[in-house]
Amino acid sequence: MILTVALNAALDVTYRVEGTVSPHETHRVTSMTEAAGGKAVNTARVLHIFEEPILVSGLVGGDTGARILSLIPPRIKHLFGTISGESRRALVVADTEDATGFWEPGPVVSAAEWDAFRERFSGLVKISAIVVLSGSLPRGLPEDAYAQLVRIAREAGCTTILDCEGAPLTAALAERPDVVKPNATELAGAVPDIDIRSDADVVAAAERLRKAGAGAVIASRGGAGIVAVTDEGAWSAAPPEVIVGNPTGAGDACVAAIARGFNHHQTWPELLRDAVAMSAASVRAPIAGHVEVRDFLRLRHDVKPTSLSH
Amino acid sequence: MILTVALNAALDVTYRVEGTVSPHETHRVTSMTEAAGGKAVNTARVLHIFEEPILVSGLVGGDTGARILSLIPPRIKHLFGTISGESRRALVVADTEDATGFWEPGPVVSAAEWDAFRERFSGLVKISAIVVLSGSLPRGLPEDAYAQLVRIAREAGCTTILDCEGAPLTAALAERPDVVKPNATELAGAVPDIDIRSDADVVAAAERLRKAGAGAVIASRGGAGIVAVTDEGAWSAAPPEVIVGNPTGAGDACVAAIARGFNHHQTWPELLRDAVAMSAASVRAPIAGHVEVRDFLRLRHDVKPTSLSH
Repeated sequence: MILTVALNAALDVTYRVEGTVSPHETHRVTSMTEAAGGKAVNTARVLHIFEEPILVSGLVGGDTGARILSLIPPRIKHLFGTISGESRRALVVADTEDATGFWEPGPVVSAAEWDAFRERFSGLVKISAIVVLSGSLPRGLPEDAYAQLVRIAREAGCTTILDCEGAPLTAALAERPDVVKPNATELAGAVPDIDIRSDADVVAAAERLRKAGAGAVIASRGGAGIVAVTDEGAWSAAPPEVIVGNPTGAGDACVAAIARGFNHHQTWPELLRDAVAMSAASVRAPIAGHVEVRDFLRLRHDVKPTSLSH
Repeated sequence: MILTVALNAALDVTYRVEGTVSPHETHRVTSMTEAAGGKAVNTARVLHIFEEPILVSGLVGGDTGARILSLIPPRIKHLFGTISGESRRALVVADTEDATGFWEPGPVVSAAEWDAFRERFSGLVKISAIVVLSGSLPRGLPEDAYAQLVRIAREAGCTTILDCEGAPLTAALAERPDVVKPNATELAGAVPDIDIRSDADVVAAAERLRKAGAGAVIASRGGAGIVAVTDEGAWSAAPPEVIVGNPTGAGDACVAAIARGFNHHQTWPELLRDAVAMSAASVRAPIAGHVEVRDFLRLRHDVKPTSLSH
């Protein structure tokens, strides 16, 4: 079982408007769509497309939380903790040119609610082999919230994959997560004294995170592909072609491929190849965060990881 | 009892963001407030401040509808009909300079839901003396929806006050509403062949609406004040000073003063004076649609209606 955790689950709302967004004007919304969101929910959706055994947990609250749960596809199992605050909406206003985003601040989680969640999580890791922790922390949680969850999951024997940034990432490294997946900005934020330009710079920065406790670092670099730095070596891989589309959710698809790779006992080059192909297939899909299996299989055929080890 | 009807009730959501709204950027919402909205709900709120006996009805649906009902102040009685569609949100993004609006399209009301509402309304008018119908119609309702309600209310002996625009206004005139309250744009839209510049132009346009069936026309002209054209004469009145503030909801406060005037058997000049003072007090109040009784009383002392009759 792969367990994904959405501590700051969101209701993704998309408004379509005619023309373009004009500050200080009023816009008629011509259509509106809603989806369950948050990085861990997106990852679960991709894993479900590939028929991996999946369970989603996290925290939801209020009417918006109830709405999120009602929009998780019925075949994806979920066991969320309930909080008294109102879950956040992530609003995207799509006009004829591009998208404008408004991120609600989200709920404040109390200490008692966090204690109750950790207890729930301690039970869930016993039936899980792989745990994916991703996304921002809601207000009220301690900076080491992910560190605490990594420790609980590792004590239960789970493989842990962490996709977060800033202080929660730094704090979690000491608990030795199996994989961390920073993007270029997040990696630069974690290792500010290295000016990251080349694959070699990425390897140097990743080795710093590994020295701080991370097992492997899988660093995504947008269209330039992905670098994996592990105990067994370092590799780089890029998509076989320039992919045009919607990059929203590509990181979550990458995390899904990493979790799937562990579930199938892939080698690092196999896992890296799939992570690159899954991200690219996600960018190409018309719906953000969706992946066409056919696209994934075709793309991964042409992804060739290169060793960066000396 | 004053009955106000919100056929297209809304959840008014205000996002505050730092800086200004920038198209195609992402904005962190620093705070968020929600209120029950729609013109009839705003009017009810003002009438409640003045301790008038008030009942709110209309149509709500879905989670957003439930949220609207939960946000109507507990001391305001309401009896809404429930529809299967989701009530709309009216989102205002307030930045350091001004506000940007996004209006959701709102629900589609079925013929069966409209029939059920008319039956509910037929019961409510029996316990009401004054009926206020205001705001846009949700999709699915016939153009003559307000015409039908005016007829039902008049047959029950109620005084009817109508604040709408376009085809629903034109269609309702034949049923002889006691008062219609167009603003300058709405009046110009109803009588497109008159170029409205002066008070005399307003009177000419208003007489056309009266000829089509309206009992009295109370035309609001923003900072320039209000013109009333009635069976008993025509008057104009302006605020005693330039009012700086938030004009949102000023029209709904004006309608509240009209309903209150009928409930207190005011003369037309008294009613007009109160309508001008109530609108001005609403503009001055820091919360949109709110009115400070003290402001209202002070302002109305200095409003002097002038006869426009020959």
